[in-house]
Amino acid sequence: MSEVRIVQNVLKHNDEIAAMNRERLREAGVFCIDLIGAPGCGKTALLEATIQQLHGRINLGVITGDLATDRDAQRISAGGAPVVQINTGKGCHLDANQVRHAIDGIDLDGLDTLIIENVGNLICPIGFDLGQDAKVGMFSVCGGDDKPAKHPHLVYAADLLLLNKIDLMKHVRFDRDVFRRDAKALNPDVELIELSVADGRIDRWLDWLVSRPQTARATADAGKGV
Amino acid sequence: MSEVRIVQNVLKHNDEIAAMNRERLREAGVFCIDLIGAPGCGKTALLEATIQQLHGRINLGVITGDLATDRDAQRISAGGAPVVQINTGKGCHLDANQVRHAIDGIDLDGLDTLIIENVGNLICPIGFDLGQDAKVGMFSVCGGDDKPAKHPHLVYAADLLLLNKIDLMKHVRFDRDVFRRDAKALNPDVELIELSVADGRIDRWLDWLVSRPQTARATADAGKGV
Repeated sequence: MSEVRIVQNVLKHNDEIAAMNRERLREAGVFCIDLIGAPGCGKTALLEATIQQLHGRINLGVITGDLATDRDAQRISAGGAPVVQINTGKGCHLDANQVRHAIDGIDLDGLDTLIIENVGNLICPIGFDLGQDAKVGMFSVCGGDDKPAKHPHLVYAADLLLLNKIDLMKHVRFDRDVFRRDAKALNPDVELIELSVADGRIDRWLDWLVSRPQTARATADAGKGV
Repeated sequence: MSEVRIVQNVLKHNDEIAAMNRERLREAGVFCIDLIGAPGCGKTALLEATIQQLHGRINLGVITGDLATDRDAQRISAGGAPVVQINTGKGCHLDANQVRHAIDGIDLDGLDTLIIENVGNLICPIGFDLGQDAKVGMFSVCGGDDKPAKHPHLVYAADLLLLNKIDLMKHVRFDRDVFRRDAKALNPDVELIELSVADGRIDRWLDWLVSRPQTARATADAGKGV
């Protein structure tokens, strides 16, 4: 039983720190998103385009996780958003403690939303709470229409699924009905947004993103009877 | 120290079973490949095309790993090759014991090569020996030219790197010099093969694959003074 117990301890410890992160971000009025997707689905490119097209509608900060290199942070900071890179070495996912330290490097004052770009991996990040308010799963048409069915745990956990690279739809075999049907069968409540970062077609994602802090504040205010 | 010790125990136990797998496959004269790539890079499609184009040059068997569904096994078995599907549930990689049981389901007599299609993940499978003779890392141009630099541990460990979907090169931003330079800087001995499964351009891969069992046998014979 010792292995099971230690895994439980690690997760319990992670959850405690995640709760602290969540509290800290809520006090600062920052909505937090955990962005999970396969390597190469376009997470960093989406963040670059998002920062470029937001035009001040909300103030965005980014934490980005990779095994190695600070290339993602370089790309994102070029757009002017505050960004902290976490290098995990051989680590296959971010954990709450890494995010806690990364938050120390970001000025939360005036920030509306923090996006955590997780390590490129469709499996391991799902079990680790980081203190986020929403989980976004990201796929691309290049990855095939079977990915929701093959990664049910991400689909269950996600508030929103993004399907990127729809500009390449005509060049690859991809049945959007299969993708949509499998995703909705697993999680009928999940939202689905198609986008093309390459073509700059990310309007629906921007609208979703901008509406989140407002929705969260309205819900919080309703809870307080405001 | 207890967590470290348990992780070491798990890996030691895995390595022992991997050694048994390796011995069993060598005795049967079967060359074994661990195929590692991101979700959607085209591993299953490559195996389908490989079986179709081999024309009996070697006899191939396949073990395929996924969190869920038997879609890959269905696709591969349609080509006539013996295949065993492993479903890992939430498991992010295959381990030697899973492979041991899967080998039980394959008739090794008359088989030249066994390809183990690992769970779609560029990180976790690398640390787990399965009993393979060679590791093949697979990328696609859709995933971006930065993936070798971001996944150095796979590049270190690989005997061969495949770059798939070169038919899409003209539709995406991808600098093959960056890809090649980063890969060779990390592992000067690694072989690189570009291919397009969609267009059926996999000749160099087939030649590499067909030559492996022969090379292994020649090396083994040389060791015995044959």
